[in-house]
Order: sequence, then C-alpha cells, then structure tokens
Amino acid sequence: MWSVAVVSIFVFQNQKDNRNSSPACGATVRRRHWDPGSPTTEYIYCRALRSLLGRSCGSTAQLSCEAKNPREREREMAMAEVDHLAAERATARFDVEEMKVAWAGSRHAVHVADRMARLVASDPVFRKDNRTMLSRKELFKDTLRKAAHAWKRIVELRLTEEEANLLRQYVDQPGYVDLHWGMFVPAIKGQGTEEQQQKWLPLAYKFQIIGCYAQTELGHGSNVQGLETTATFDPKTDEFVIHSPTLTSSKWWPGGLGKASTHAVVYARLITEGKDYGIHGFIVQLRSLEDHSPLPGVTLGDIGGKFGSGAYNSMDNGVLRFDHVRIPRDQMLMRLSQVTREGKYVHSNVPKQLLYGTMVYVRQSIVADASKALSRAVCIAVRYSAVRKQFGSQDGGPETQVLNYKTQQSRLFPLLASAYAFRFVGDWLNWLYTDVTQKLEAKDFSTLQEAHACTAGLKAVTTSVTADAIEECRKLCGGHGYLNSSGLPELFAVYVPACTYEGDNIVLLLQVARILMKTVSQLASGKQPVGTMAYMGKVQYLMQCKSAVNSAEDWLNPAAIQEAFEARALRMAVNCAQNISQAASQEEGFYERSPDLLEAAVAHIQLIIVTKFIEKVQQDIPGHGVKEQLQTLCNVYALYILHKHLGDFLVTGCITPRQGALANEQLGKLYAQVRPSAVALVDAFNYTDHYLGSVLGRYDGDVYPALYEEAWKDPLNETVVPEGYHEYLRPLIKQQQLKLSRL
Amino acid sequence: MWSVAVVSIFVFQNQKDNRNSSPACGATVRRRHWDPGSPTTEYIYCRALRSLLGRSCGSTAQLSCEAKNPREREREMAMAEVDHLAAERATARFDVEEMKVAWAGSRHAVHVADRMARLVASDPVFRKDNRTMLSRKELFKDTLRKAAHAWKRIVELRLTEEEANLLRQYVDQPGYVDLHWGMFVPAIKGQGTEEQQQKWLPLAYKFQIIGCYAQTELGHGSNVQGLETTATFDPKTDEFVIHSPTLTSSKWWPGGLGKASTHAVVYARLITEGKDYGIHGFIVQLRSLEDHSPLPGVTLGDIGGKFGSGAYNSMDNGVLRFDHVRIPRDQMLMRLSQVTREGKYVHSNVPKQLLYGTMVYVRQSIVADASKALSRAVCIAVRYSAVRKQFGSQDGGPETQVLNYKTQQSRLFPLLASAYAFRFVGDWLNWLYTDVTQKLEAKDFSTLQEAHACTAGLKAVTTSVTADAIEECRKLCGGHGYLNSSGLPELFAVYVPACTYEGDNIVLLLQVARILMKTVSQLASGKQPVGTMAYMGKVQYLMQCKSAVNSAEDWLNPAAIQEAFEARALRMAVNCAQNISQAASQEEGFYERSPDLLEAAVAHIQLIIVTKFIEKVQQDIPGHGVKEQLQTLCNVYALYILHKHLGDFLVTGCITPRQGALANEQLGKLYAQVRPSAVALVDAFNYTDHYLGSVLGRYDGDVYPALYEEAWKDPLNETVVPEGYHEYLRPLIKQQQLKLSRL
Repeated sequence: MWSVAVVSIFVFQNQKDNRNSSPACGATVRRRHWDPGSPTTEYIYCRALRSLLGRSCGSTAQLSCEAKNPREREREMAMAEVDHLAAERATARFDVEEMKVAWAGSRHAVHVADRMARLVASDPVFRKDNRTMLSRKELFKDTLRKAAHAWKRIVELRLTEEEANLLRQYVDQPGYVDLHWGMFVPAIKGQGTEEQQQKWLPLAYKFQIIGCYAQTELGHGSNVQGLETTATFDPKTDEFVIHSPTLTSSKWWPGGLGKASTHAVVYARLITEGKDYGIHGFIVQLRSLEDHSPLPGVTLGDIGGKFGSGAYNSMDNGVLRFDHVRIPRDQMLMRLSQVTREGKYVHSNVPKQLLYGTMVYVRQSIVADASKALSRAVCIAVRYSAVRKQFGSQDGGPETQVLNYKTQQSRLFPLLASAYAFRFVGDWLNWLYTDVTQKLEAKDFSTLQEAHACTAGLKAVTTSVTADAIEECRKLCGGHGYLNSSGLPELFAVYVPACTYEGDNIVLLLQVARILMKTVSQLASGKQPVGTMAYMGKVQYLMQCKSAVNSAEDWLNPAAIQEAFEARALRMAVNCAQNISQAASQEEGFYERSPDLLEAAVAHIQLIIVTKFIEKVQQDIPGHGVKEQLQTLCNVYALYILHKHLGDFLVTGCITPRQGALANEQLGKLYAQVRPSAVALVDAFNYTDHYLGSVLGRYDGDVYPALYEEAWKDPLNETVVPEGYHEYLRPLIKQQQLKLSRL
Repeated sequence: MWSVAVVSIFVFQNQKDNRNSSPACGATVRRRHWDPGSPTTEYIYCRALRSLLGRSCGSTAQLSCEAKNPREREREMAMAEVDHLAAERATARFDVEEMKVAWAGSRHAVHVADRMARLVASDPVFRKDNRTMLSRKELFKDTLRKAAHAWKRIVELRLTEEEANLLRQYVDQPGYVDLHWGMFVPAIKGQGTEEQQQKWLPLAYKFQIIGCYAQTELGHGSNVQGLETTATFDPKTDEFVIHSPTLTSSKWWPGGLGKASTHAVVYARLITEGKDYGIHGFIVQLRSLEDHSPLPGVTLGDIGGKFGSGAYNSMDNGVLRFDHVRIPRDQMLMRLSQVTREGKYVHSNVPKQLLYGTMVYVRQSIVADASKALSRAVCIAVRYSAVRKQFGSQDGGPETQVLNYKTQQSRLFPLLASAYAFRFVGDWLNWLYTDVTQKLEAKDFSTLQEAHACTAGLKAVTTSVTADAIEECRKLCGGHGYLNSSGLPELFAVYVPACTYEGDNIVLLLQVARILMKTVSQLASGKQPVGTMAYMGKVQYLMQCKSAVNSAEDWLNPAAIQEAFEARALRMAVNCAQNISQAASQEEGFYERSPDLLEAAVAHIQLIIVTKFIEKVQQDIPGHGVKEQLQTLCNVYALYILHKHLGDFLVTGCITPRQGALANEQLGKLYAQVRPSAVALVDAFNYTDHYLGSVLGRYDGDVYPALYEEAWKDPLNETVVPEGYHEYLRPLIKQQQLKLSRL
C-alpha cells in the first residue's frame, strides 16, 4: 500500500479589489501523485502553506512524503511534525507519562480524560476559536447548541457519569447545564424529602424540566439571611404565595435563570401564621413547558453583559421577579422542616448538619477547578516562554529564550508549583468529603467545624491566587497575551467570578478566622483541636520554638518548613486573640482586628496546602524522577510563600532575617532545578490544543504562523478599507471641514 | 412665570406576547397641568418611573412639583434630587471644592476640565453605555465617528491644545487619533530635521495624513535592537527599499495601523554599502490618499480581538508587511544621522541624548494616566461601598454599609491613598520633564541617567499597581462588579496594556536596578548621587541607623517614615551589589540576582513616591481641612507599603518587629480617620457620571434601579423566549431524543 503526495504551493496576494477582499496570502497548489483526502496529503499541504506564510509573494515550497504502509506513514508524519519544543521535552528529568498519572490521580483517569478530550476536540460543533467574536445572542445560541449536542453524544455513546462530566468540562463553555446538574439537582437531593426526590429527580435527569438555583437577590449576596423574597402560606388554598416585595428583592445572578430554565429552587422567607421563619427553598415553575413563555406573575430576563468577550457571556445569569405567584404547599423543600396543612411550622428529625456535606462537595470541586484553570494558564505561559526569545544577543545571533531569565522563572515557577499544590490539596479535599459524609451518616458532627474552616478557607485562597495567577501568566506572555487568540483574556474573565460565588472570599476567610479564634480560646481549657487544626495543640512548643535552619540546604528539609509554617500560623492567630481580648467586647475586637484576622486565616490555609503537598510527596510515587520532581515543586511552593510573606515569619520571630535570606537563596537554586523540566511539567497536565484554546500555548510551539493566521479571522479584516471610511476618514483627509483650529 | 407639573404613572406589564416583547415594566402617564418639554416635568416623570421600578404591577406613583420661577424651580428640583450619599458628603472633614483644586493642580485646571467633561457628556455622539454591546466592526466605526466629531467640535469651538486634549480624554475611547498625536507627530518633531518637520507636520496637524508609529514586530517587542525589518539604500535610484524578510519581522501591534493610518514612522535596520547600521526611523506612506487602499507591496490588517468587550477593541492595532517597498531617501528621519546621496552613513552633530526628553514626556503622561484610571476605579468602589449594605443586623433592621467594614477599608483606602500619591508624583514628573528639557538644551546631561531611572521606574510601579488595583476595586464591589454596567471590567481591560507598552514593566525595573548598582559601585569613589538618588549619599548613616519609633503615633512623623524607606531601599541595593560582586562576573551576578534586583528597584521607586507625597503635604495647601486630609492619606500610603513589604524592612533590620506591629496599629487608626471623608475624597476627582461610566459609581448612589434598567438593554432581552429554543431546548424538554443514557 503506497501513498505519495507532493505538493507545491505558490503564494500570491490578491490585490485586485482591495476594498472587498482580505490581503491574506492565498495559495495555488500543484499536485503530483495527489491522493485526495489522504491525511498525509492534507497534512503536508497545510505544513507547506504554513511554512510559506513567512515568505514574500512568489515563493514556492515543496514538501513530499512517501510512505509504504499506514504505520510507516504515521511514523513519517510524526517525524515531519514541527515541534519547536522538542529540545525542551528532551531535557525533562522525569517520565512524563507517569507524571500524567500522578496529576490525574490514576491511570484510568488519564485514559478516560484523554478519550473525552479527544472526543470533544474532534467534533466541529464544539469549536471554540470563534467564541470571542460572537455577539451575545449568537454566543448564547451556540451554548444551547453545544449543550444539546453534548447531551445527544452522552446519550448516544451511553457515557458514564464520570465520562459525561469530563465531556462537559472539555466543552468548556459555561451554560445552564452547569446549574441544572451542579445546583438544582443537588438542592433537591439534599433538601427534598424522599417523596419530593422521587417526583422531581427523574424529570430533571431526563431534562424534561431545566432547573436553576435562585438564591441571591439584587440587594443581597453573601448575607443569605437578608433575602427579601417572601413565601407566605395561604391555608385557604394550601398554597405558598411567592412574591418580590421590593426592587432589591429581585432574584439576580442565578445562572441559567434568564432564558433557559423552566424551574428554579427559589429561596424565600417562609411566612406562616403571621410569623417569619427565615429562608427556605421552594421548587417553582417559571416557564410554560409548552412554549417556554414565563408563567403569569413571573418576570424573567438576562442581567446583561459581563466581563470579557466570550467568557461567562454564554451564561444567561438572570433576573426574576414574582408578583404573588402561587405554588402548591408540597413544593417547599421539606427534608429539614415543613409546613403542615394547617400552616404549622415543624422541624423534621433530620439534623441540619447533613446539609454541610453538599457544601463540602461544592467547595471541593471549586478547589479542583482552581487547579485546572491555573494549570491551563501556566501551561500557556511556560510553553510560550520557551518559544519566545528576547534580548541576550549583542551580535545579531539568536536571542535568549524568555524562560531562561531568572525574573521570568521567579514569577512563573511558583505558579507552576501552585498548580500542583492546588491539585493535591484538591485530591485531599475529595477524601475529606468522603470522610465527612461517613461521619455525618453516623451522626458524628465532631469534625464538622474544622472541615468547614478548611474547605471555606481553601476555596478562598485557591480561587484568589488562581485569578491573580492567570493575569500574571498573561503578563508573562508580553503583549501577545493581550490578544484573544492567546486564550488568556477569556480564561481570566471566565474564572474570576469564582472569587465571589459560593461565598465571597473575604467573608469565607473571616469565617475561618472566627473558628481559629474559637479554637485558640479553647486551648487553655485543654480541648485538643482536630484535623487540620491539630497543630494548634502544640501551642507551648510552637510559641517559643526557633528554627534550626543554618544553611540554604536546610530549607529542603520538610520538617523545617512544616515547623516554620505551623509556628507562623499559630503565632498570628494567638496575637489576634490577644489583641481581641483587650477590646471592649469580643465582637468589637473581632471587628477592629479583622484585617489582621484575614492574614491569620490565610497563614493557616497556606499551612494546610504546604502540609498536604509534603504528605503527598512522602508517599510512594512511581515513575522515573516523578517523586523527585514533585519534591522540588513542593519546596518551591513553600519557600515562595515564605519569601512572599516574609514579614509574617519575621515579625512573629519564627525565623531570623538570616534564615529568611537563606530561604530566598535556596529558592533561586530550586528554580534552576525546575528549568530543564518546565515544559514537560506542563505537558503532564495532558491538555489538548482545543481545550487550551491558545495559539501561544500550542503543543508544537509553532506560535507565530498561528498568531498571523488568527489575525485575519477578525471581522474587521473582511474589508481592507474599513466601514466608516467614506463618512468619517475621507472628509478629514480631504479637508472637507472647517479650518478654524487654534491648534 | 409659573410652571406646574403633576405626573401619575401606572405600571403595567406587557403579557400579551411574551415571545416578542420585553417583560420590563412600562408605564402609562396621566398628566395634569402638563408642561411638555419642561425639564421639571421630564425630571419628575423619570423620578416617578424610577420609584415604581421596585414595586409590583398596578402600583401608581404621583409626584408633583410647583415652582414660581425658574430659580425656585431649580432649587426645588435639587431638593427632589435623590442623593443616597448625602449623609456621606455631610461628614466630610474638608472643603471638597478646594480639594478639587489640589487634585487638578489649579483653579483653572478644575474649570477647564469641568467644561470639557460636560461638553462631552452632553453630546449624544459621545455616548459610551452601549460600547460593550457593539460588534468589533460597529465599535470601530463608532470610534471613527467619535474621532471625526471630536475634531469637528475642536475646530468649531476653536479649542486650545489643553482643551482639545481634555476633550479627547473625556471621549474616553482608544483610537487612531491617540497615536497620531501621541507618537507620530512627536516622532517627527523629535527625530526629523527642520526641513522634514516643515514638510510633514502641517499635513499631520490638519489630518491631511493620518500617522502611526510602527516599531514592534511579531517576534520582537521590548528588544528594539532585535527588529528585522530592513531599509536598504539603493544608490541607483536614491531610494530606501523597505522589506519584511521573515514572518516574525511583520510589524505587529502598532495602534491605528490596521485600518486608519495613511502613513507610519517605520523602524527598520538601515543597510547601506552592505553594512547594517541598526534601527532607524522612516516615514512611509501605506495607503492611497484617494481611496485608502494599501499601496503596492504593502499588506495591512488588524491583528484581531483583544481583552474585554469594548475596551481596546476600538483600536485597530495592526499588522504590516512590506514587499520591497521603495521610499525617497529624504523620508529617513535624519535629525541624528543621515545617509548621503552616495550612500555614506554620517552622524549629525545633534547629541543622541536629546531624544530622552520625549521619553521622559511620554512616561510622565503614563504616570498621570495611572492616577486617572486608579482614581476612577476607586471612585466607583468607594461610592458603591457606601451604598451597599450587607450583614450586621441580627433582627431584620438595616444592614451595615460595606464601607464600615475594616476589611473593606484596609483594602480600599490604601488604593484611595495611592490614587492621590500617583497624582502628586505625576505632577512632580511633569516638573522634572521641564527641568530635563532645560538641561538638555544647555547640553547638561549630568542628571539624565537618574531622570531615566526614576521615570522608567515610576512608569513600571504605577501601572502595575493600577492594573491590580482596578481589579481589586472590581472585587470590592462584590458580584455586581462583574457586570459590564459596573464599568470596571472595561476599565481593567482597557488599562492593563499600560503594563506592557512603552517598556515592559519588568524590563524597565531591571534598567532601574542597573543604574542603582552603578550608583552603589560609585559610592566608594565618593561620587555624590543626584536627584532622587541623593539619599544614597548618606550610605554610612543609612546602613546602620535604627528607627526611633517607640509608639504607634511616632509613625505619623514624616521623618521617621522617610528614614525607614531610605534605609530599606539603600540596604536592599547594597545587599544586591554585595551578592553580585561575589559572582564570577558582574553580568552573571546581575542575571542570577535579578529577582532580588527587581525588589530593590521597587523599594527605590516606592521611596520616591513616598518622598514626593511628603514634600507635597509640607507645602501650603489652601482650603479648610485639605492639607490635614492629604497628610492622613500620605501616612496611609506609606504605612500600607511598609506593612505590605514588612519583610523587606525587617530582613534589612531597618525596623524591629515591634515597630512593624506599631505601624500596622497606626494604619488601623488612620483608616478610621479616612472613613468619614471617603466619599468626599472621591468626589474631589470631579468625574462626571458619563466619564465614570458605571452604574455602581453614580454620583447620586441610586444604584439598584439603574442596574435593573441597564439589564433590559442587553440584546438577549429582545425576546423573552431565546433564539435557539425551538432547535435546542424544546426537543430536549419534549424528549425528542434517544433515551439510552446510562446516567
């Protein structure tokens, strides 16, 4: 079986009608032994075209490929493949395939993610490259299309839940489906009675209804207890009357609410027998299942454009107002409490704490998402920093790879290490969720508070760091990072709401601080803290210990790092507690010291991340050099945090100025160790070019031709002479205006 | 003269055809004593409509206004005016009008800015509120329209250069005009001979040609010496041949290049007699002045979409390729060097240093822009934080203003102080520019290096801080900051390129560091540093001094702050110099220590900002409480930086841990002093609602009705049932798909 393809290309430039045609280079093709449709032929054609992009008009290129059988052809194609990063990949000091397993969690996870990523990447419906150019309406329609197509594929291919979730992840476009599966279904599962679950879940599972989660209001975000929407029980008709009494009570922000959802779990103040029982959830139908029009008394709309092009604008975050809308009594979610036919409010015997399980689950997934978003940004920045050259040559020779600059390394490698750190602490949170669930089922609530503190805090810290880090990665790509084709602007814009939703990060950190203060106050009574707070039990030692570090290398010792981080976190918490105790009241002290409390909470959470990373790299990790590489990253992460927050460590006397300087020295050495493996470390994330969506982050590093090609797709390039020339530029140039300027 | 208007409004909801109409509340109006077109009537109609937005259907509102004469009517309207922030304004501890003068620089500056801002705000052509909803092509056309209209107004009203610049600032939309005036004209002025200026400047002044500045290339940004475009002299025809030899040599990024410009100053390697003389500037015509089509051999296009909606997408950043394009020899910019008719390369007797003046000017204006962008973001965040309430009530009473939270204050007030700090250091840079210019004219180059270090460093620090601060302000507005209607997403997206253009911030800081190292090395030889580096002359004192601070109040002493900042900056520089001296070579040491050098450079620049702020508040500043308020902000700025970089101060031993804790304590007290004046301090920026472009930052604080109104303008709300329902949602809900799911 022979296949021969020889392609030659002549680049020309269409100059005939500049006003109406793109000036991009085109190509004519002369074929010999042309094998139409053969991937080899197509491939070579594309490569030749691309190689010509940099040349002037009239150039020709000729590439050929002869292969004796499919296997050999494949090998030959692989050889012909440009890989500008091949040299980088060759210097990796570990087995990349095994690192993929360490990152993904298991060989199975690598395999299934791979399959789903390729399924999405190869399907034209799921193209993403035009997303930032679509109008709001086009983008929303595209989202509906993708959601329907994804569901079709999930059903056709009989995908498992794991596969379906991965497929949705790789489709990578926020939409109503996220809230349907991520909030509506879990709310019914967690807060609905058995009966309610049996009625509503099958409808939701089959998409016969589309649901969302209507909690926040125009005037009320973080403070759920301040919500104004009312659900007043009318015993005459056995119904609740749902009503929006003020403008600020309008439901505002819920994803999927504006245009897609037919139903919502609505949170409202339950009022019965003239008494307000606070916030409860109700299943409310919003739109007709026949024609999708809003039901009487329901006002629905989208709340308008959001940050960025593309990004979260694919989501119909909505506004919802009720004008005395009636729903049957049994649509109150009644697992924890109910209203009887007579209008009596009664608690069930289900402990309220059971709801915490869901919260741990949701926040756990947010931490996992943080490591995904951060690793995507880092992957783009590392690869492009290896491709990009700048300065370093005095005599016209090749310039230096940007990745070789220490300033680039000192900004980028800590983010690379953070991506791994967040990944592993996310894995651990996943375990914690299982643990909490088991304990809740056994009615053991002893670790709940600690689990709450650590999930809330990890959500806050990982999302804040990730948002800033994506933007830092964008800046690390220089000017080109500002182009939509770099993928980074959209990645940033779509990610940042994570800092606000599911608990504003500052509010969450103050909750962590409150639990820290409570724990400190109980130390005196001898109550032993548990879990991630257990270290606080060593209060006497940690308050007076001195770091034994005496050389830069001493900072490679996990015990030295662990102790310094524990001492810093504890001392900051104890300082806060002491300051608070001097205030007129506990509450006033907490209020006055809240900026310091935030810092103490962050120190505690950073300790958890460092600890879990250390625990991870102390396990058996198979694969040549994988464990060593992760140890290096763990040290980078810890020493970077130490350097960044050096003031904390010094002001609490946990380390000396000299020890601080030694840590910084060691950090510099660690960067040099990361450098040869940097590209391989981001390859281990195993992201397809489709999922990355970045010309700068291309696997093959063939960045510049791709940037050039992308530019011509902009609608502004549809004509060489822009619309508006005749109205607004020509009269200016032709001086058809008054000439009275005093300039 | 009587004017009476009584308006009553009935709110209804259009339910007739939900699929095709917006569900927004409309209104019918019943009029009594209706005086059509009277501003009072219109005003009351709008107020009544707005007051009803929060109520349910069927409500009525009645407002009346009777006024006996225009003056009284005006007073009555002013009284009827909602000002949710009136109470905030009443607590200000200073004279706002006088603070406006301090901010703007003079009474004249306040007056002229006011006039120009109102001129723009009242002109419908300059509306900005729809900008994020326009497609790329619509937005670009809108930019051409605004530029032409602005020019028309400038000419018609015979505006001065100062007025014209302000008008363009308030139009607030990046476009080709910025590069024409800001780069093309100055390049010809600075690098052209008298003759060239006489030929080209009149054309540019009248817009008979439109110019841009074509320096950066696809593969070459910061490193100007690495540019690849060639300009080869052909003595046969007395022409230069401009050519793009590779793909990476394509000009890439220049603003105004893609679609608008007819000419460019092109930077290319000058080659004559077979020798490469490096980068020089050439005036090249790109497009026909008759039909705007690109000239033969010129390929032009836009480089594609950029970060955000609206934002910098109004600019046609362009790509440009030359295929052996010929220009006359006299279009080389020949002020510094020239090529003779025979092809000889000769230097003129004009010193190269003269070009630095332009650079100082450009960077000075970037620092001024930083304070503008930062103050806009802070203004929005402060006002909305005063409007927004959250938590703080256990019993259903009013919640607490977010601005009262210490955590909010500790994040927001340092940014408010930074806005003022950057404003004043910008004013000082403006003075420096005059000073440098005078010295250059007298051929005195002695302060040039120091001036370069401080302008480069101030550009880097103020733009980096501002970019991060805008995003921080967005987060401080909670979820609503993520909406385009908040104005903050666009403000961020349009601002961030300032970190990269006109010198990447990291590259600039390394230049500062290089000059710092040189200065340190010269200290031993007794050479006295000048200007902003003069403090380094006190090396012996500063290397061993100990801060005398003994109480929190001691940190209010400017001398204590100044000394701590000087000692920190100097010790960091000296530490770096010592570490470098231990390396094998100076160059290797500089490379290895570059992350530390960045930190030393930042410390030096922060010292300059603190010093100039202190100098400012030591001057006479008229107006009740103005000087005291600025002193407070100066202390906030300095102590915030000290707290943020506490590690620097402690590791260098400039202050003790206890002194660091005292500074933090004092900082908390200062926040409490800023709080009552916070809203007035942002009012002093004197920004119109049009310029702010934010519903959250409205002067009247009437945020929620405005948010609600804005939402309905989104194109997605044109229909209640979204496009795509019949194709992609109905089939799902109606189960017209396979039912094979394994879920």
